[in-house]
This record gives sequence, structure tokens and C-alpha cells, in this order.
Amino acid sequence: MKNTKNKARILIDCTDAKGLVYLVSKIFFQRGLNIDNNQEFVDKESGKFFMRTVVSGDFNANDLKTELGRVLPSHANLKLVIPKKKKIVLLVTKESHALGDILIRHSAGELDATIQAVIGNHKTLEELVSRFDIPFYFVSAQGITRSEHERLIMDAINHYHFDFLVLAKYMRILTENFVSCYDKKIINIHHSFLPAFIGANPYKQAFERGVKIIGATAHFVTSDLDEGPIIAQNIIPVNHRFDWRDMQRAGRDVEKSVLSRALSLVLNDRVFIHENKTVVF
Amino acid sequence: MKNTKNKARILIDCTDAKGLVYLVSKIFFQRGLNIDNNQEFVDKESGKFFMRTVVSGDFNANDLKTELGRVLPSHANLKLVIPKKKKIVLLVTKESHALGDILIRHSAGELDATIQAVIGNHKTLEELVSRFDIPFYFVSAQGITRSEHERLIMDAINHYHFDFLVLAKYMRILTENFVSCYDKKIINIHHSFLPAFIGANPYKQAFERGVKIIGATAHFVTSDLDEGPIIAQNIIPVNHRFDWRDMQRAGRDVEKSVLSRALSLVLNDRVFIHENKTVVF
Amino acid sequence: MKNTKNKARILIDCTDAKGLVYLVSKIFFQRGLNIDNNQEFVDKESGKFFMRTVVSGDFNANDLKTELGRVLPSHANLKLVIPKKKKIVLLVTKESHALGDILIRHSAGELDATIQAVIGNHKTLEELVSRFDIPFYFVSAQGITRSEHERLIMDAINHYHFDFLVLAKYMRILTENFVSCYDKKIINIHHSFLPAFIGANPYKQAFERGVKIIGATAHFVTSDLDEGPIIAQNIIPVNHRFDWRDMQRAGRDVEKSVLSRALSLVLNDRVFIHENKTVVF
Amino acid sequence: MKNTKNKARILIDCTDAKGLVYLVSKIFFQRGLNIDNNQEFVDKESGKFFMRTVVSGDFNANDLKTELGRVLPSHANLKLVIPKKKKIVLLVTKESHALGDILIRHSAGELDATIQAVIGNHKTLEELVSRFDIPFYFVSAQGITRSEHERLIMDAINHYHFDFLVLAKYMRILTENFVSCYDKKIINIHHSFLPAFIGANPYKQAFERGVKIIGATAHFVTSDLDEGPIIAQNIIPVNHRFDWRDMQRAGRDVEKSVLSRALSLVLNDRVFIHENKTVVF
Repeated sequence: MKNTKNKARILIDCTDAKGLVYLVSKIFFQRGLNIDNNQEFVDKESGKFFMRTVVSGDFNANDLKTELGRVLPSHANLKLVIPKKKKIVLLVTKESHALGDILIRHSAGELDATIQAVIGNHKTLEELVSRFDIPFYFVSAQGITRSEHERLIMDAINHYHFDFLVLAKYMRILTENFVSCYDKKIINIHHSFLPAFIGANPYKQAFERGVKIIGATAHFVTSDLDEGPIIAQNIIPVNHRFDWRDMQRAGRDVEKSVLSRALSLVLNDRVFIHENKTVVF
Repeated sequence: MKNTKNKARILIDCTDAKGLVYLVSKIFFQRGLNIDNNQEFVDKESGKFFMRTVVSGDFNANDLKTELGRVLPSHANLKLVIPKKKKIVLLVTKESHALGDILIRHSAGELDATIQAVIGNHKTLEELVSRFDIPFYFVSAQGITRSEHERLIMDAINHYHFDFLVLAKYMRILTENFVSCYDKKIINIHHSFLPAFIGANPYKQAFERGVKIIGATAHFVTSDLDEGPIIAQNIIPVNHRFDWRDMQRAGRDVEKSVLSRALSLVLNDRVFIHENKTVVF
Repeated sequence: MKNTKNKARILIDCTDAKGLVYLVSKIFFQRGLNIDNNQEFVDKESGKFFMRTVVSGDFNANDLKTELGRVLPSHANLKLVIPKKKKIVLLVTKESHALGDILIRHSAGELDATIQAVIGNHKTLEELVSRFDIPFYFVSAQGITRSEHERLIMDAINHYHFDFLVLAKYMRILTENFVSCYDKKIINIHHSFLPAFIGANPYKQAFERGVKIIGATAHFVTSDLDEGPIIAQNIIPVNHRFDWRDMQRAGRDVEKSVLSRALSLVLNDRVFIHENKTVVF
Repeated sequence: MKNTKNKARILIDCTDAKGLVYLVSKIFFQRGLNIDNNQEFVDKESGKFFMRTVVSGDFNANDLKTELGRVLPSHANLKLVIPKKKKIVLLVTKESHALGDILIRHSAGELDATIQAVIGNHKTLEELVSRFDIPFYFVSAQGITRSEHERLIMDAINHYHFDFLVLAKYMRILTENFVSCYDKKIINIHHSFLPAFIGANPYKQAFERGVKIIGATAHFVTSDLDEGPIIAQNIIPVNHRFDWRDMQRAGRDVEKSVLSRALSLVLNDRVFIHENKTVVF
């Protein structure tokens, strides 16, 4: 893999130590690479170091990675990514707004990903997806157990090599078993400003509580429901004139923009997961 | 009480029925009053009607109120308020930002209230308050029970006639007994986007959860801690670079602006309390 | 036109006078109609009164309108609208985000309008529009005058009866003549926070100026370029890391959400135009 | 100047070149210094490199600066700042909100600056300033030329050594001559979302234009009125119910928070000025 005047995103996280920036930047300098972008962060509490550098120039990716690995502590996580479109699979239920926003971006070439397929536990969105010539799989959950249903979904999606599985308003809870098969690869949009209104029907909960602001949260899915690392959040004001369906309607615009923002961040390798949090450069 | 070319704020809430607007506006028309401002709302779920009207003209307040009462259902809540500065008492602990913002507005004549006194369970803010020639009472909670402490506070504040008791970062929990003595009169600023992070040290909780937005909530205090009717909320974005003290610092600006916004609303009689929610015109 | 248990939106604007609310609400009361929603506003400067009421019940629309007209000043503007989907035509150029957002809402039944047709001065968006089985007309501006081009567009759109002509990132300036043919019917999304950066390439202007926030403005189109009544605006923060193309990219999400918000307002008859401003209920 | 376990903020800007990060971080490594924080940015258009690093450890500031200067291009701007409270002087007119917010922060020890003095061209704010035991100088502009007035102000402030001159709603235009005496040291809060509504009474202008959002802008003052490098901006929504005085009132909260935010950034050496823009780390 020889790249002439190419770019690489280099992601490092490890225990903080003196000289890390020096040791890494020395390699870039000696190889004559440009640093197009560089961000670092040290988490004081855990003493962990995070670095994301975009370099450009003439390099062999494997060699560069090997050399970087040599100067880093042995426990360090090191990724060298050559920027290109990633692959994603979407899980949906009935609501079209989050899916639709992603389809439009995809169709305009603005999404840094190729949508491999869309899986729905209802047929509702089949027509919309087919308008964009993207495979849609209807995997009904009727009359079968949750595990059986997930097994069928896995059968459908495991055809594809994908980087991320995006829950674009997929309204079923995933089992720990399913989640563990796609560790740090599942991204969900939750229709509340987490950790407020965990669980079912957050808009009804928000309405009952009489809040003046509602929100949405994009996060990685872990085995703890609604407790995974948060990638992005946003809100909009509401008032007493909003019943819970109005809140739901208003919330859709936030949901779709937060999910798209989070997707853009992960697709550009800007997100580190650190325990139950994210570092977003 | 005869007012020439005066103003009144009329607040009505009752079970919705046909003709309420007609019956009320008829009285204004027959008396030759101007409607400067009028807002209505019907809560569909509870079937309750809310109306706030500002009228101006030549009227006798008692007569007008009596006449309005005659056309409204017997259970209706009816308030007729002649606009003037209300009276408030503040409870504080050690943090100066919310108090300071109120003192500056007060000093500039921008607060629609007169500050009667400030009570602190610490001496920290005495100097700041005394700069503005406002009485400060230090009521220590050291070595006494919560009830005894509240009894001392009540002794201090019951000298004053006040419309609202404002908890400007008062960091102690009030007992049900105390709260019940000042029903719908206590306003608190909670340092989180309720109902997220109920309870102690919300910023630490927010930091632990890795949220990307923090907020503040101004609400009426009821016997359920942090569960009273919300008046106003706002947020600011944060990121991984914020430790919990940074969040606390950033949160102060939101806290003080949300509290001041809520105060302005209640001081202008714009807030109806309806069960555990507010209607804000 | 006899409506049983139907709804009407009644929009009134006229010079303010005592008794307007009384006279109007009296008619509703006498006819046994419910007021579902009522908002009023008096513009102090111009002395103008605005009222939007949603009534429900058993009424004949023509009779009701006639009766209302009888009690209002002769110069009053009075509209009685039976809620139903309006008809719109879209003008586009090459960018898909605003169009795409409207298409997705339309396809989900969330837009209170039927899209009659899309006109493009480039072919770029034909494929996207055709995915949704909506007529697309390519009207090239190549080699002809602005007036000739507009004549061809008018030929294409005048087939249709439409309530609003939506410029969903239509990147050509319309002549005074064209605009005057569709008075108060043309809605544009401008890619800046007007009145900042009037004219061409606002994102480049914003970048050159080093702003920390960019925005978008939806407005009615009048003969004064970028000077028509503003319906809705919103913003997002940017920073020194954004070059003008990044600003443009970031701006797209604001543009589409502001346009959709403005559309929703006008389609629900919530917007009064008053000289060069709007009153939005 | 020998600092044991001390901190320094190092600010570098120069033409971009390969190896800058390496050369600088090498010095930190060789001296055994910790990098607590490090941010870099390359402005693609101008090819300029910006770096802000916070290091801690055992170092002699002069030696460190000399050594850094040796590896940087000769034209590089290099600052090494030992964090401590800076000194500021405030210019005010009649409005108390921006001044008051700064006084409260100062009094709470939350401002990374010492207020040396406040100069007013009116006496209005003398009482407020004196409450905080800070010198207030009344410098009337009555009956004298602008230059004479500025000469008197300079006489008053040149007693003090100050890092920044803060215009906390100082409502007079400064001459080019005055501005040139305090290059990159004068910070202003402008009561609009620049570049919208340059010039006098932005709130009236905003009201006339019928905007739905108003804002405030903190910027360095240069000889071009309202055209200096922007440090921070923020906005709040308004609507047709706001007359221009309501907008002014609502704007005050944004003004004071934007000015305080900008102050915090410059006092922490987070702001580079680059031509007519800022890079804010």
C-alpha cells in the first residue's frame, strides 16, 4: 500500500507520558510528512492521552504504522486510517425522518459512507428505501422470540462488511448478546436529552414533567440500555402549547440532525471511546 | 382604589367552556378598556382554560374584579394585579453568581422587585450584600437540627412581607413543613437540566455520564425535591475538555440567566401553575 | 360549504380599536363554536391589530365569514381558511439539501402541502425528484435573457394552481416583474443571517469577516433583493477551523431546517405580513 | 525567574513549515516538561501556523523562551506567559449590565484579572463602581473636542499598567489615534450580531428589519469601526412582540455574557489575532 501525496488519520490513545508528542512528531518530521491537523487531549482523571493527527505526504501506511508502534507504549491503541468512504447498515422501524436525512445525504454524495442495506422490523419504510435503489430487508419480529429475531437480522446483515450499524429510530431493544457481536460499532439516536427520560416514550415523559426544552442524544450502544458513550446531543425549546405529539414532531428535527452530526464524526474517525465517554476531536 | 388611565393584569384559570373569551372581553368593552395584550391557552388533556389579559383605561380595580367574577364559573381562579414592584427575599449559601446578577439588576432598577433581605447559611456573601445596602442575615445551621434552622430562617424572613422567596443557589434541602408555609412562593435554580441529574452535585454526575450539554432549571419548590413546576430552562454545550469543575464554572452563567429569566416571568405575573407544570405567557 | 364539527382558521388584521376581541368572540359564542386557539397582537407603533383564531363546531364558512366581516372595520383583512393541504411548487438549482428535506417530509405525509412540481435551472436534481414521482421541469437559462428564462418558468408553473412558490436554494435573482406576479407567495431561504451578508456567496463573506456564528433566513421575496419580510432564522456556531466550504456545509443543516420551519408556519396560516415584517403566531 | 513545578503558556505563530511541532515538542521533552494542553492550527489560505501549549515542570522562563526562539523561523511570534492575573481598565457610559457582570466576577475572584479603574464619560455608574472600592474617573466629554476628551481619558488611564482596555458599553466612537495607542489591547462589546447592524442603535435597526434573532459581538477594536477581529458572538431569539426597547433589554444578557466569555478567552491567552480574524483555542 504505497500512497503518493496521500493522507492518513492517525489515532493514538495510551497512558500519558512525557515525550509522546515529540516521539510521534519526530517520525512525521523524519519522513517529511506534513501535519495537516493535530489535536491532543490528556484526561487528568484517568491519566490517559489521546491524539489524532492528519498527515499528508509520501508514505507507506504499514511502515509508518510499524514505526509509530515502536515508539509508543506497548499497551497503546494505534490506528492508521486512510480516508475513504466507510460502509454502514441501517436498522429502522417506521419513522422516516432519520433514515430520510441519511438517504438524502448519501444520494448527494455528502455522507462519508456507503449504505449497504437497510433492515426494517416493519415494511413501512421499504418504499422509501427502494426509491434510492438500496436493498431493504423486512425482518418481522412477529411470533418469534427476541433472540430469534436478532438471529434473522444478523443473517441479513452479516452478508455485508460494514463499519457501523446505525439505529435510525429502530424501536426495539437489542439484547446483550447482539450488542456484544458489534462492539463499538452500533450507533443509536435516542429521542431524549439523556440521561433524562431513559426508557420508553421519552416525549410522553417530557410532556408529563412539563419541561421547557427537549433534546436528542446520539450514542454508542452498549449492553446497558441508553447508557452508552454519548457522541452528540442537541436540544430545542418547547412550551406549554406542545402536547406530547407536538414534542415528538419537534423532536424529529433534532433527532435527525444529531444523528447525522454523530455519524459524520465517527465516519471521519474523530471519536475515541474511553470507558463510558467519548473524546471528540 | 381608583385608577385613571391605569393598567391591570387579569389572570384567569378555570375549566374550559364556550364563551369565556366573549364574556370577559364584553366587560372590557363595556367599560371602555383597552386590551393591551391578551393570551389564552386551553390544555386539551385537563380541559383547563388559561387567560392573561393586560387592560388599560379608567377603572376601579375592585369593581372590575367583582364584575369579572360574576361571569366566570364559581371555581375559577381570578387575579387582578395592578403592576408594581413585588417584594422578594433571597436565600443563599456561598456562591455569588446568581445573587450577584440579581443585585446588579436590582441596583440598576431593572428588576421588577424590591429585595427585602438576603439570608445566608454561611457568612460568605455578607460583604457582597452589604455593598448594596441590603440587610443580610447569617443563620448558621451548625449544631442544630434542620427544623430548628428553618425556624430561625422563618423568624428572620417573617418580618418581611414578600411575594417570592428566591433560592439563589441555596444549597440545603428544605423540609416539607417549610415549603408548605410558602406555597407557590419559593423559586429555586437547580444546576442541571432537570429531570437529568436530580440530587446532589449534578455537575459531577454530568461529568461522569459524559454529556455534551449541561443546563439549568428554574422551578417552583414543592415538597418533592427537584420535582416542582418548571418555569425556565437553558443549556450550554460542553465537551471532553471540561472536567466537572469546568462544567460547574460554565454552568454558572446558565444558572444565573435562567433564574433571572424565571424571576422576570413570575414578577410580571406571566406564570400559571397547573398541577406540576407551568403555563407561561 | 357546510361543515359539521369542522375547523376554521380565522385571520384578521386591521387598525386597532376597542371591542374587536369582544365583537369577534361574540359571534363565535352565539354560533356555539369552540375557540381551540386564539392569539392576538397589537403593534404599538402602527396601531395595527392582528388576530388568529382556530374555531371548531358546526358552521357554514361563508355565513361565518360574512358575519365576521359585518362587525369588522371596512378596511380589515379577513381570511377564513378551512385547514387542508396547500399546493406548492419548488424552484431549485443544484443543491439537494433543502429540496431533499422537503421531499422526505412530503413523502412521509408530514408536510401540510402537496408538491405540484419542481423546476430546476439545472438538470442536477432531476434524478432525485423523479425518485419521488414528482414532475421535474428543466428550464435552462443558457443563451437567453433573464426575462425570457422567467417567462419559460412561468409557462411551466402556471399549469398549476399553487399557494406558494418555494425557492429551495434557487440561485438566480428574480426580476421585479416575476416577483410582482406572485405577491406574498414566494418564500426563499437565504444562506446567511440577514441582514448580514446580503448578496452573493454569503459564506465567503462570513469567512472573510471571521464570524463565530453563521445562520440562515427564510423570508418572503419582494422586489428588494434579500429585503423581504423575515419568517424564521437560525444559526450555528463556527470557528477558525472552518474554511468557507466548511461553513457552507455546516450551513446546509440550518438552511434546510429554517426553510422547513418557515414552510410549516405559512402552510398553517400562522404568518401575517405587515409592511416589511411578519407577525408569526 | 526560576519556577519550580510551574506552568507556562507558550504561544507561537509563524509561516507553516514541516517539523514545527517536532522541534518545539523536542525542547519540552528534553527539559522534562509536561504538556498539559496543546492545540495547533494551520490556516490553509495564508499558510500560517498557530500553536498554544501549556507546559508544566521545572524551567527557567527566559532560558526556555530563548531556546524555543532558536528553533523557530526568525519571523515567528513567540510568547511565553506565566499564568497570573492580568490588569484591565474599563470604559463605560451609562448602562450597568456589562460592567456589573464584570464587577461581580471580579469580586468573587472568578475574573483572571484585576480591575485597575473604571472611566466613565457620565457619572451614572460611579456609585456602582464605588460600592466595590474600585477607582472611578468621571471624564466628561461636554464642551470639548473628541481629541481633547480622549486626551483626558489617556491621562487618567496611563497611570495604570494594564493589559487590556475593556469597553463595557462605552457608547462613544474612539479615534484612530486613540486606538493606535493601544493596539490589540482594546476589547469592545457591540450590541449586534456583526456585521449586521453596524453603526448607531443596532436594536432599532434590528426592530425595523423585523429580525427573529438578535445578537452581540465581542471584538478587538481597530481603526475601522465595528470591523475589528471578532472574539465571540452569541444570539437570542426575538419575535414580533418585541419592540426595540424589548430587544435592547433582551440583548443585555447576551452582551454581558459574550463580553465575559471574550474576556475570559483573552485573559487566558487563548486568542491569536491574525489579520482581521481571531484563532481561539
